[in-house]
Amino acid sequence: MDSIDDLIRGTGAAVYCLHASSENAAMRHMTRFVTSDPVTILKKLDNPPLMIVPQMEVERAMKESAAEILTRKQAGYLEIFEHEKDPWKIQAEMIHRLSDGPYLVPPDFPTALTRALEPYNTVFVDSSSVLSAHRAIKTSEEIGWITTAQRAAEAAMDKAISLIRNADVRSGVLWHDEAPLTSDLVRYEMNRILLAYDCTGKDTIVACGPETAMPHCRGTGDLRAHEPIVIDVFPSGNKTGYYADMTRTVSRGEPSGKVTELYETVKDALLMSEGMVREGVTGAACYQMVCDYFSDLGYPSDTEGFIHSLGHGVGLEIHELPSLSGLGGELKAGNVITLEPGLYYRDIGGVRIENLGIVEKNGFSRITNYSMEMIL
Amino acid sequence: MDSIDDLIRGTGAAVYCLHASSENAAMRHMTRFVTSDPVTILKKLDNPPLMIVPQMEVERAMKESAAEILTRKQAGYLEIFEHEKDPWKIQAEMIHRLSDGPYLVPPDFPTALTRALEPYNTVFVDSSSVLSAHRAIKTSEEIGWITTAQRAAEAAMDKAISLIRNADVRSGVLWHDEAPLTSDLVRYEMNRILLAYDCTGKDTIVACGPETAMPHCRGTGDLRAHEPIVIDVFPSGNKTGYYADMTRTVSRGEPSGKVTELYETVKDALLMSEGMVREGVTGAACYQMVCDYFSDLGYPSDTEGFIHSLGHGVGLEIHELPSLSGLGGELKAGNVITLEPGLYYRDIGGVRIENLGIVEKNGFSRITNYSMEMIL
Repeated sequence: MDSIDDLIRGTGAAVYCLHASSENAAMRHMTRFVTSDPVTILKKLDNPPLMIVPQMEVERAMKESAAEILTRKQAGYLEIFEHEKDPWKIQAEMIHRLSDGPYLVPPDFPTALTRALEPYNTVFVDSSSVLSAHRAIKTSEEIGWITTAQRAAEAAMDKAISLIRNADVRSGVLWHDEAPLTSDLVRYEMNRILLAYDCTGKDTIVACGPETAMPHCRGTGDLRAHEPIVIDVFPSGNKTGYYADMTRTVSRGEPSGKVTELYETVKDALLMSEGMVREGVTGAACYQMVCDYFSDLGYPSDTEGFIHSLGHGVGLEIHELPSLSGLGGELKAGNVITLEPGLYYRDIGGVRIENLGIVEKNGFSRITNYSMEMIL
Repeated sequence: MDSIDDLIRGTGAAVYCLHASSENAAMRHMTRFVTSDPVTILKKLDNPPLMIVPQMEVERAMKESAAEILTRKQAGYLEIFEHEKDPWKIQAEMIHRLSDGPYLVPPDFPTALTRALEPYNTVFVDSSSVLSAHRAIKTSEEIGWITTAQRAAEAAMDKAISLIRNADVRSGVLWHDEAPLTSDLVRYEMNRILLAYDCTGKDTIVACGPETAMPHCRGTGDLRAHEPIVIDVFPSGNKTGYYADMTRTVSRGEPSGKVTELYETVKDALLMSEGMVREGVTGAACYQMVCDYFSDLGYPSDTEGFIHSLGHGVGLEIHELPSLSGLGGELKAGNVITLEPGLYYRDIGGVRIENLGIVEKNGFSRITNYSMEMIL
């Protein structure tokens, strides 16, 4: 918690405030409490976080979170409710009773609560991303949780690959158990495996042919031979909330010459970026290296080609710091990142390969342990 | 979209702004676009929503969303980036180029973006919840999506009930396939069923004995006979994003007398509240009726007893408007709500029964189709 105290001190605030459900990574990271309803958290200088919860959550919060717990009633809710009915003003008055401020809030703090706090004292916004950058350096426990999710992703990938590899091919369409092998079926079988690993897959991508030109298209319909199939799976642990992320592009049988060329180019870019990543290098430099490499080979980044960033941090959010885009700052040892170069063309299709690993002082330590073979 | 235009007109704003991923229900409702990264949406008076997306999402967005689509580049990102590096100020300048304002934003709009917009023009906050209330009235299509998720919930509940009913009892512990029947195993089997219905279950509750006194405890360890088991399942459709929600409390064999008494009391409260719900009645009145009923029978609401609200709207959020708490306003025809009275005592355990249904002009139309038998 040192960095939060430094941050509070640096801004001249008295307290750092959060108001969010555990869908919010900063909230979950600070409290380890899981709730679908927003709660208020106050982190005073040199104090542990204090979390204000409804009566129904108090015992569970005490059991599951290291934060100090107050009920809303203890925080004055009922007294405030006598003269104030606006829910945001009630929240603000509860916060004010616990700290006179000034208040420091994250960039995504609700505007309505900021407005309700402003009459009491200054509200500073932490636009420095100090906390997100702090969260981007993983402990060994967090790396363990991410690795566990990654093993689940690999088992699910293995299921997808084996369905595609073992399918019959009839008139160019893949068949399984006397029915066409569809994107939906492969996704379902993958998500079943993830569940067996106590992980959840959401929007797992199994896209084929022209769909692969849209990087985040989930995929629909029958899978076909001799066309690229992009499989992107990013499960999170049901108990931990930590994500993993991997992508493979495969083809049942040889695809058109252009796809194979894209594949080799993307794979080379991935290996080169894995070789470049280490503490102190910027995400922007890694991204630019790949842009230049693609461009030199006749694949400039424009409305087609390499149309997304090189990668991103992975943790309680599927996309978090550090960024490996044109804006990406210095990588730090302990960052867990994916590298996922891709090339996308409407008339050819898309290819993406994505590995997950740890930024080390002297290199990139790959967590992903899975073949990069394209042709099945 | 009429109500948004009315809202914009009423505040004197020129445009309603959202900045969120599709985890945000207002964003998903307005665009039907699924993305884990925040995008900016501008809804001008008498115009369809306009969504600004990264280059990589443009074709998918055009295919999947009814919103008009602009890429960030088309919205001036690259030009702005030449003189401005702060990501929130870049967003604000993109918004300003598209509308001079005044701007209207939802209560949970990011404070950093509000601060970056304020130099351009007034930023009004929609604290009236007009849009959330609008979203709380479901179309028949939305009721269909919720009902589909509810059928999945019932199939999962059936799996749990049959595992508990058919378990062997050894020294008070339930056994299945030569191993103790655990909370984790039942949850896993339920979530597998949900997946087969193309739904996802998150934090499905299977809590036994003392754990049931904590309403949102997920549950751990072995399930036991003659103790209350609370099963609360709230899947969302993988393609639609719409939730359902149901809870049953069961016991393998007769539980202690107190639990049975709680059960009958809670069940009566549920049936009474189902009889009271209709258009025009307030959520607060329904809640108070149940509080009074419990209180009259010697179960006052305090730090134990009935420690949560009577129910809530269900849709793209698991907890949305209308509220059936002390703050609950008038129910409207087309609201989809759960009714979930419960009683919780540290020395007895907890009982909760929850049904889902539609608020009608003259009553409550139950969607849930599942037995309320307690003793298995």
